[in-house]
Amino acid sequence: MAGAHSPERSWWGWGKTGEVLSDADCVAIGALLPGLPSAPLPVPQLEDLVLPPSRITPPNALAHRFSVALPDRAGHTYGKAYRDVVRALRGDLAPAPDLVAFPRSEDEIVDILDWAGEHRVAVVPYGGGSSVVGGVECRSTDHRGAVSLDLTAMHRVLEVDSVSRAARIQAGAFGPVIENQLRPYGFTLRHFPQSFEFSTLGGWLATRAGGHYATLLTHIDDLVESMRVVTPVGISESWRVPSSGAGPSPDRLFLGSEGALGVITEAWLRLQDRPVYKASASVSFATMENAVEAVRAVAQSGLHPANCRLLDPGEAALSGAGRHGEAVLVLGAESAHHPVEARLAELVTLAHDHGGAARPRGERGDSAVESWRSAFLRMPYMRDGLARMSAIVETFETACTWDRAFEVYATVRAEVGAAVEEITGARGAVNCRFTHVYPDGPAPYFTVVAAGRRGNELAMWDDIKSAAMACLTRLRATVTHHHAVGRDHRPGYDRQRPEPFAAALRAAKTALDPHDVLNPGVLID
Amino acid sequence: MAGAHSPERSWWGWGKTGEVLSDADCVAIGALLPGLPSAPLPVPQLEDLVLPPSRITPPNALAHRFSVALPDRAGHTYGKAYRDVVRALRGDLAPAPDLVAFPRSEDEIVDILDWAGEHRVAVVPYGGGSSVVGGVECRSTDHRGAVSLDLTAMHRVLEVDSVSRAARIQAGAFGPVIENQLRPYGFTLRHFPQSFEFSTLGGWLATRAGGHYATLLTHIDDLVESMRVVTPVGISESWRVPSSGAGPSPDRLFLGSEGALGVITEAWLRLQDRPVYKASASVSFATMENAVEAVRAVAQSGLHPANCRLLDPGEAALSGAGRHGEAVLVLGAESAHHPVEARLAELVTLAHDHGGAARPRGERGDSAVESWRSAFLRMPYMRDGLARMSAIVETFETACTWDRAFEVYATVRAEVGAAVEEITGARGAVNCRFTHVYPDGPAPYFTVVAAGRRGNELAMWDDIKSAAMACLTRLRATVTHHHAVGRDHRPGYDRQRPEPFAAALRAAKTALDPHDVLNPGVLID
Repeated sequence: MAGAHSPERSWWGWGKTGEVLSDADCVAIGALLPGLPSAPLPVPQLEDLVLPPSRITPPNALAHRFSVALPDRAGHTYGKAYRDVVRALRGDLAPAPDLVAFPRSEDEIVDILDWAGEHRVAVVPYGGGSSVVGGVECRSTDHRGAVSLDLTAMHRVLEVDSVSRAARIQAGAFGPVIENQLRPYGFTLRHFPQSFEFSTLGGWLATRAGGHYATLLTHIDDLVESMRVVTPVGISESWRVPSSGAGPSPDRLFLGSEGALGVITEAWLRLQDRPVYKASASVSFATMENAVEAVRAVAQSGLHPANCRLLDPGEAALSGAGRHGEAVLVLGAESAHHPVEARLAELVTLAHDHGGAARPRGERGDSAVESWRSAFLRMPYMRDGLARMSAIVETFETACTWDRAFEVYATVRAEVGAAVEEITGARGAVNCRFTHVYPDGPAPYFTVVAAGRRGNELAMWDDIKSAAMACLTRLRATVTHHHAVGRDHRPGYDRQRPEPFAAALRAAKTALDPHDVLNPGVLID
Repeated sequence: MAGAHSPERSWWGWGKTGEVLSDADCVAIGALLPGLPSAPLPVPQLEDLVLPPSRITPPNALAHRFSVALPDRAGHTYGKAYRDVVRALRGDLAPAPDLVAFPRSEDEIVDILDWAGEHRVAVVPYGGGSSVVGGVECRSTDHRGAVSLDLTAMHRVLEVDSVSRAARIQAGAFGPVIENQLRPYGFTLRHFPQSFEFSTLGGWLATRAGGHYATLLTHIDDLVESMRVVTPVGISESWRVPSSGAGPSPDRLFLGSEGALGVITEAWLRLQDRPVYKASASVSFATMENAVEAVRAVAQSGLHPANCRLLDPGEAALSGAGRHGEAVLVLGAESAHHPVEARLAELVTLAHDHGGAARPRGERGDSAVESWRSAFLRMPYMRDGLARMSAIVETFETACTWDRAFEVYATVRAEVGAAVEEITGARGAVNCRFTHVYPDGPAPYFTVVAAGRRGNELAMWDDIKSAAMACLTRLRATVTHHHAVGRDHRPGYDRQRPEPFAAALRAAKTALDPHDVLNPGVLID
């Protein structure tokens, strides 16, 4: 039987075991938040875990591609949401998959889906497992068992078309593997979500992931030239074309389908020349109102900055990018072909014209950018450390039009802040950054940090999250800009999704997955 | 009963009756093509037309919104494809709708769909009627009758959000009406398809129309913030958000649905500040190979020209933009905020670096641009004049990746040229321009001009078109980049569309249109 859990990868939390905070660091970071216990929750040892017994046996012909090993099952039980980490820390692995499969070809996936359909087994496609919305956790009680379908054995760049600047890449490839394989050609996919190291192409496609760019090519969607998807009724392959007006886009049905309509196995992705010219700067604002106006001017200027992140005062302070209660706007321009200083200067001027201030020496340009970037990559590890101290630490994100941007920012902060206080009995932090900006609106990204009560953290967070979702729904701001829906966002998604579209999607699901094996509970019931 | 046929609009051909070529002009233009008859086909008078009797009567409560008047039925029988014009000129109006409806509200559309479902009447949504792919022609024999649902009574800009730069616009608004209503706000939708004057927002959305921009915002799809669609099972309304990762995009299902899934009634569209800075230039190339390489460099440069049209030698000669058998590249840059001369200079330099030549005095810059632009807008009238002389004149368009761009160009010209010669017995012209370019490939647009045999033109064209579609299919170039599928592209579309996606789309259709009343035969059987 196959088995693939790497001891370098944390089975219960974010990223690599070597990067995980020590107990002492957990205590130190926990001391910043009044009211937390004095010691971190211990990390359960794999050998101490008790998993429900596996209810199914794999098909004989493919048994060598399946694993029932405890590390594999434990590591594939959850994604990496706060609520996943807390449950794992408690040793609660009730939704563990009965089996983990590691197929090496489309043919094997076809066989697994056929077998699952015949035996009423749920199949949950799994890439890097970095979902923060319950996207890879099987909660079905209608199936005889569940298989986590780990695609990471299919991880190669299969073909590079240097003329059209595109590559055929397998779904199980992690971000760094893709970039390493493209580098010799001088190309980059230039899609850098926060999870870059620990997420795969297939996951990005299935969840409409958001990447590095703050403008223009924000989502993986726009990088897709064509896709191959194994559905239970056959393989869907769209043609490689730069654009098409031939009916509704097939790719756009599978983008964001979160494993509910098929298993994405490979795609042709648009590449870019590696950027040579880069420049960045930061601008500070005394008030968030001014900052929002400045960012709107930048977003509507047609200057298309590669980076345009607005950190509100709380976020700026937390990441070390800002001081004195100011909001900080980090701007970046880049190009493979042309110097970008002039464009950056135009962007900075625009920000200054809207009330931005040049930052004091030592806080300008790359230093703020760098301090923010390293905080950004460390954040999930800090989150796990705080979770072990029974803090509540989680993020949620949205997008709205500019006419309501400040209202959404202020209302969410006020209402979620009030919910935190009511639910935890103490004030917490609700910080915000704008991760992506569009001519018609920003994508605000909120971080909640509060002291939880040990043993009660999950219920507390679920209540806070419900309040956040209700607030976003009332404001008609999307339930997710790039984290996807999964199981955790279903209530908000169901309210947002137009009912006729829901009917169409249900019908499409029934047509493609007649035995209802694919990721049950995601998007469609 | 309502009636809306304007005597200013040609019922049989393109555009305005006042712009139609005189008989003498038809003869003059026909003289350019050897082997045509010496006199044009007469244009049938409306009073001489014989239409099949109307088989159905409208619902009583809405009778005042329906017309059985001959000019309305005749004017709504076809779109404006070459094959439509030829049939209209012959007085062949066999597929005339039984009734034409002119609803003024969504409620009326709901009532009409309910009535149609109950009585098994086909409903064909109709905007400007400029389809060149048989998109508005009802060929069903399974229905008790057909209604052309003319949406042009719903033609207002309902709301403008100046902060987010977006407007809520009714589907029946024609291009100029939209621009006129946005002008006082300083905004433009900046979507200028060739049919701009004679097509509507709803038509653009339903067909994924291609507009003015050669790069970035090429299709109307990317301008859509949200949509309202009346389906037989309810109204679908997506939220106004700049971007969302919440499941597959609802809007992307209805974009390109060509009236088969619902009736688009209004949408929030992203606007832009009106451009102030504009600059254009043209560059010539001795060979098309060189020109294609230069255009690829431009498309992959990240400079995003607003205009980037490559005219092959035949196209350049025909439109008066080029001479001496050279290919001509027309480049344009524009901005509402920043001078664009420097960017244009970079674009021109790039073209020169790839073998382009500065054009002689008097053929540079705006003169070539202007001569091409006016030819572009006159083209459909010329087409109709030539059609009256029994010439075969039609266009088709596609998109492919750069690695195959020159091959597609050369192969299509060779094979369609050979088909023309074999079918008509004489050589014709197969010219090409690239209308839009992407980092991974161009959208080539072909024009066929050949001498037909009077009475046989249609069969000849259908054979040529079949050869073209077979060629594109073999080369895996899309059956349409922005003309849509309609009924004419169904064979090519059915070969291109992945079968699982077809199954999903059929299921979605059944869910949304359970009585199969909406535009039968389009996209789905």
